[in-house]
Amino acid sequence: MQIPAVTLRAIRSFFVGGQAYSVAGLPAASGRMVMNAPRRAIDPNGDYMAGQAYVQEYRLARPEHRVPIVFWHGGGMSGACWESTPDERPGWVWHFLLAGYDVLVCDAVERGRASWAMYPQIYRDAPVFRSQNEAWHLFRIGPPDGYASNPAVRRPYPGQQFPVHAYDAFARQWVPRWTGHESMVLRAYQQLIDRLGACILVGHSQGAGFAVEMARRNPSRVRAVVAIEPGGMPRARALPASQSPHLMLWGDFLEDAHPIWRDYRALADDYWQAAREAGGRFDVLDLPRHGMAGNSHCPMLDANSDVVAQRVIAWLQDAACHCVPHGAQQLS
Amino acid sequence: MQIPAVTLRAIRSFFVGGQAYSVAGLPAASGRMVMNAPRRAIDPNGDYMAGQAYVQEYRLARPEHRVPIVFWHGGGMSGACWESTPDERPGWVWHFLLAGYDVLVCDAVERGRASWAMYPQIYRDAPVFRSQNEAWHLFRIGPPDGYASNPAVRRPYPGQQFPVHAYDAFARQWVPRWTGHESMVLRAYQQLIDRLGACILVGHSQGAGFAVEMARRNPSRVRAVVAIEPGGMPRARALPASQSPHLMLWGDFLEDAHPIWRDYRALADDYWQAAREAGGRFDVLDLPRHGMAGNSHCPMLDANSDVVAQRVIAWLQDAACHCVPHGAQQLS
Repeated sequence: MQIPAVTLRAIRSFFVGGQAYSVAGLPAASGRMVMNAPRRAIDPNGDYMAGQAYVQEYRLARPEHRVPIVFWHGGGMSGACWESTPDERPGWVWHFLLAGYDVLVCDAVERGRASWAMYPQIYRDAPVFRSQNEAWHLFRIGPPDGYASNPAVRRPYPGQQFPVHAYDAFARQWVPRWTGHESMVLRAYQQLIDRLGACILVGHSQGAGFAVEMARRNPSRVRAVVAIEPGGMPRARALPASQSPHLMLWGDFLEDAHPIWRDYRALADDYWQAAREAGGRFDVLDLPRHGMAGNSHCPMLDANSDVVAQRVIAWLQDAACHCVPHGAQQLS
Repeated sequence: MQIPAVTLRAIRSFFVGGQAYSVAGLPAASGRMVMNAPRRAIDPNGDYMAGQAYVQEYRLARPEHRVPIVFWHGGGMSGACWESTPDERPGWVWHFLLAGYDVLVCDAVERGRASWAMYPQIYRDAPVFRSQNEAWHLFRIGPPDGYASNPAVRRPYPGQQFPVHAYDAFARQWVPRWTGHESMVLRAYQQLIDRLGACILVGHSQGAGFAVEMARRNPSRVRAVVAIEPGGMPRARALPASQSPHLMLWGDFLEDAHPIWRDYRALADDYWQAAREAGGRFDVLDLPRHGMAGNSHCPMLDANSDVVAQRVIAWLQDAACHCVPHGAQQLS
């Protein structure tokens, strides 16, 4: 069997957004910054850049589509979630490159390689940390009382697709987050869309909410949106006159779930309904209704992540063929 | 002209190191975690993973060398420094892939996608932030009084190779760091070396100190070390019986520099001298003595970064040809 391979003409990264801040009045300190070195003075006062997002870019030698895919992770995670599953199967970056798409992966402001800034001098508040206990139920891996510190006795939902044996590996990729930073993230992401000109946004959770909002703000440049379990959706009022095709995708176990999912789903359904009434192609893929039971909040990490990726890729091809949004502009 | 291209059989990432921590006794909070959502309860108590490093892996379809390159960034930076220069030229990841090496890029514990943990509950101390003012002199871009908040009036050293116009872009990739976490980083990096079996370590600054230390601890598995401006070197005592080839590389402007460079250089020279007396191939490349003037502390980001990369690659080929460390084991 031929091993699948991807030929790239560029691997690179850059930052978008961010602005200069100046910090003054902090006490001087000193520290041993590296092994076996003498202490040196540390003066934390001065200028800083903050508010930027990080973008990693993979450009194919021969892309099959004109418009690149941009991956936006959810809250408390980084772009790492698109690279590999926690049990080390290929991630969606690989699947979408194999499907002929150029791929960009972002770390939102304050997450991962985007860095974060001191508080209360630059950011106002302290960050929020998500425990493994909370994520177990919030990510719909199992019931609240199914989590235990000992991996051997954890109790997931029956038929769970998430690779539960790799839950601690998954927890290694979680990063602290801040509340109230949405406008800072959206400013950085706007710069990315301005730079790219045209893009397809694939977002997860909070990143899916950002994707729908940025499609609303940039209806001609965002050529399609795939919103995986969106959180933080725009309100249904103030829809643009027309929008590119959108796909919303949901996993399983929504009935027994943390109550936020009812709220998030209702917000998303409201927006979808209003956008459909305005004439848009706003599709929904409820995985359990399409023969895929057992998915968690993170279908791109679940055991069937490659099958879900192929469903999304097939939808993108179909949306590109059957929709001509904004006059003569083809999706790809 | 043929555009250079790289054919990969895998792009993936994983985490090494880290352990479980449990946090209790923190007050419950609440917050609006995403746009337009109701507030929800936040309980920060529970289990966390902390102490892991992040590893990004690029595997060539047809590598020309058996042993992969592992890039370790310096203090206050992340693996992003190997991907692109601040003025968006190709980074060393691309140059080394083109040269036929499999490449791995790490984010050390607490930096970038490796995430960081709450203090004082898991980490003991608060982090250290590096201002643009401090880095200007510390990274030997210009004299201490040459930095200004206004980019137009900044005064670098004459002949500076660092892309000074992109200094603010560079500052966007800096991340907070902690002091006293060296043993945690080395535990994670040890797991990576155990997993790889054999590797070539290319480190910058603090990452170069880690590379020399890990070669000392793993003399048969670390097949070569390239230490770019090493900080935090091991003491010269307790050298292993034999070690793989090492190259130490230094930029320019060391005379006028921040006094830490005298200390760091002296530590490195001591180690090199002792290792040579023990029979090792421990080379030094002082760039200004070899026709390359004007390099900063970050030669992999400077205007001549591709020339420096080719010098390093040529040294690796030569070290692989002429040295047979540890009996019959070839470097690559």
